Amino acid sequence: MEPAASFSLMKTTRRPFIKTAVGASLATLAAHADVPPPVTRKLGWALVGLGSLSTHQIAPALEKSRHGKLVAVVTGSPGKGVQWREKYGLAEDKVYTYETFDRIIDDPSIDVVYIVLHNGMHHEFTLRAAKAGKHVFCEKPMANSANECREMIAACEAAKRQLGIGYRCQRELHHREAMRFAREKVFGPIQHVDAGFGFAIGDPTQWRLRKKLAGGGAMMDVGVYALQACRYLTGEEPVEVVALETKTDPVKFAEVDETIAWSMRFPSGATASCLTTYHFNGRDDFTAYGTKGRFGMRPAYGYTGLTGWTSDPKIPFTFPQTDHFVTEMDAFSLAIIEGKPFEPSGAEGLRDLLVVEAVYRSIASGKKETVES
Amino acid sequence: MEPAASFSLMKTTRRPFIKTAVGASLATLAAHADVPPPVTRKLGWALVGLGSLSTHQIAPALEKSRHGKLVAVVTGSPGKGVQWREKYGLAEDKVYTYETFDRIIDDPSIDVVYIVLHNGMHHEFTLRAAKAGKHVFCEKPMANSANECREMIAACEAAKRQLGIGYRCQRELHHREAMRFAREKVFGPIQHVDAGFGFAIGDPTQWRLRKKLAGGGAMMDVGVYALQACRYLTGEEPVEVVALETKTDPVKFAEVDETIAWSMRFPSGATASCLTTYHFNGRDDFTAYGTKGRFGMRPAYGYTGLTGWTSDPKIPFTFPQTDHFVTEMDAFSLAIIEGKPFEPSGAEGLRDLLVVEAVYRSIASGKKETVES
Repeated sequence: MEPAASFSLMKTTRRPFIKTAVGASLATLAAHADVPPPVTRKLGWALVGLGSLSTHQIAPALEKSRHGKLVAVVTGSPGKGVQWREKYGLAEDKVYTYETFDRIIDDPSIDVVYIVLHNGMHHEFTLRAAKAGKHVFCEKPMANSANECREMIAACEAAKRQLGIGYRCQRELHHREAMRFAREKVFGPIQHVDAGFGFAIGDPTQWRLRKKLAGGGAMMDVGVYALQACRYLTGEEPVEVVALETKTDPVKFAEVDETIAWSMRFPSGATASCLTTYHFNGRDDFTAYGTKGRFGMRPAYGYTGLTGWTSDPKIPFTFPQTDHFVTEMDAFSLAIIEGKPFEPSGAEGLRDLLVVEAVYRSIASGKKETVES
Repeated sequence: MEPAASFSLMKTTRRPFIKTAVGASLATLAAHADVPPPVTRKLGWALVGLGSLSTHQIAPALEKSRHGKLVAVVTGSPGKGVQWREKYGLAEDKVYTYETFDRIIDDPSIDVVYIVLHNGMHHEFTLRAAKAGKHVFCEKPMANSANECREMIAACEAAKRQLGIGYRCQRELHHREAMRFAREKVFGPIQHVDAGFGFAIGDPTQWRLRKKLAGGGAMMDVGVYALQACRYLTGEEPVEVVALETKTDPVKFAEVDETIAWSMRFPSGATASCLTTYHFNGRDDFTAYGTKGRFGMRPAYGYTGLTGWTSDPKIPFTFPQTDHFVTEMDAFSLAIIEGKPFEPSGAEGLRDLLVVEAVYRSIASGKKETVES
């Protein structure tokens, strides 16, 4: 584990750090990118929830990780437990169930718990992982509500463990360059961001369409990517939102949102227009408008094929494709090994939920809503 | 003038025509485009208001027009009157003032009055032109309010004269193709349109920043282009809007809107996200999302350089640049010569104002607003 001293340092500098989270984490990243840090040891990761994301993205990424390795899994399915034991050579006692999960407190091989469960289970398992003394890496959206986020943050702080949120894009090369364009005003100060992410969702029985499990629909699942882009491109927190919802299939989307268009106002006067949908494919982009030009990505948020463009032919915006999961898990492992605060942390996940809640309030009230801070 | 009989025919078929305005006018356009109609005679156009648009776009376009010619001007500036007489070889009695304007009733050389005045003057001069028995071609936005639009429509109907609105884009080749993509569902039914138009406005003393003269700010001036795109790409009228305004310069924009982001919901469930601004350059585009792909334009609304793109490399979206003013004035002249109804007519201008008013109401109320129909 990280030295307690340096984690205390992180706590005392918490507020200023949060205010410049993007800047600070980019500086750290840049330093990391130039000279890969030595591998002193690999942290042990336990995956909680063995669905598609764990199977196809996260477990393969852990095999490529410099600073982390898969040491345990947590699943409600005995069949999956067997499969994963065989595939990853795990001992029988490294397959936990949701009931036996708390026993990880006695398993020193596990440093980090990666929560890949339904959104509605993030809160409970973060609290249980923190109680077991483990660092927590939690998929986005962080939880079903801002209140859950606050409790998750408090639990990890009380346990003196780090809480990272799986915002892949914040460490992806194109997005990092987009943040730099914005921060260094390469195209002038950003005046407007237009961003959208969505897809045509299939199986009407899946958990993503159940409010209790998912917390919401497209907004919670993919809308947060567009929201994230608006926040890190303006470098500001939105103060007001107005939202509008449409449903073409009120049966399928009886519990959760299908399509939401929303606008945001930022303190500087910058604005954002966003869309999220479970109804159609093709929206997967952002465009940032500065006073001197514009830049954007399309596709912007998937695992591969990300493509940047700028309005200035002399300013390129092309990077190699990378494995977002390897990158973020290595960064989280390294932050723990080095005793440094990791971003995006729980505070970042909370900020998104505060905006998501304002969007949902606006839909319910039919009014412009202030974002809670 | 057009035969009264055929104009009566237009009146009796008015309602069904309006409902399929885009389709019908495109069909007419297509027929026109294939075989240019013979020039039987050129209609006489009088330009009211000799500002930049008349000077640099409209008068030069009338020189290239097949079916129209400049025969008179109306100006409040004696100096401009002299300049225009000399430049265009007009007789002294073909230069009217705003006071002598009504004498055009006795000038049979004038068939059409093109109103290029401040928005706040469109209503008055349309009524006066109709009273003088002239057809009216009116710049966008049609007027300062929907009520003014209704009175303008009624005045032209009572005078049995046509009222056309200067929506250049509706007859421009790229936009026509975009309408076809949408109508024929080339990329599937349109689910969402993202559109924006704006620019950094200069001189703080100009009429565009005075509410009485301009009716509003960016929304009235350039927001209507984005609104038009959303309406003719979805082929529907929006039923609900939510809007959000920001002002970075409350002094300069004390009377009118600087930047507005708004969302619209259409009866089918389609949505639109729009932005208009007087604060920064670069927003000049639309993207239409169908179930099978997407297409868009950037730049989309200027006089030149319009560029289309599609998500399918096999479906091109490139056309020669044309003079939008020649095209629309020729179409309006020809409609009158042939006694056929012209679109976009006053009814189309009114529809936009109804949405614009809902946007302004939403800003004032902070609520979602229904579009009056």
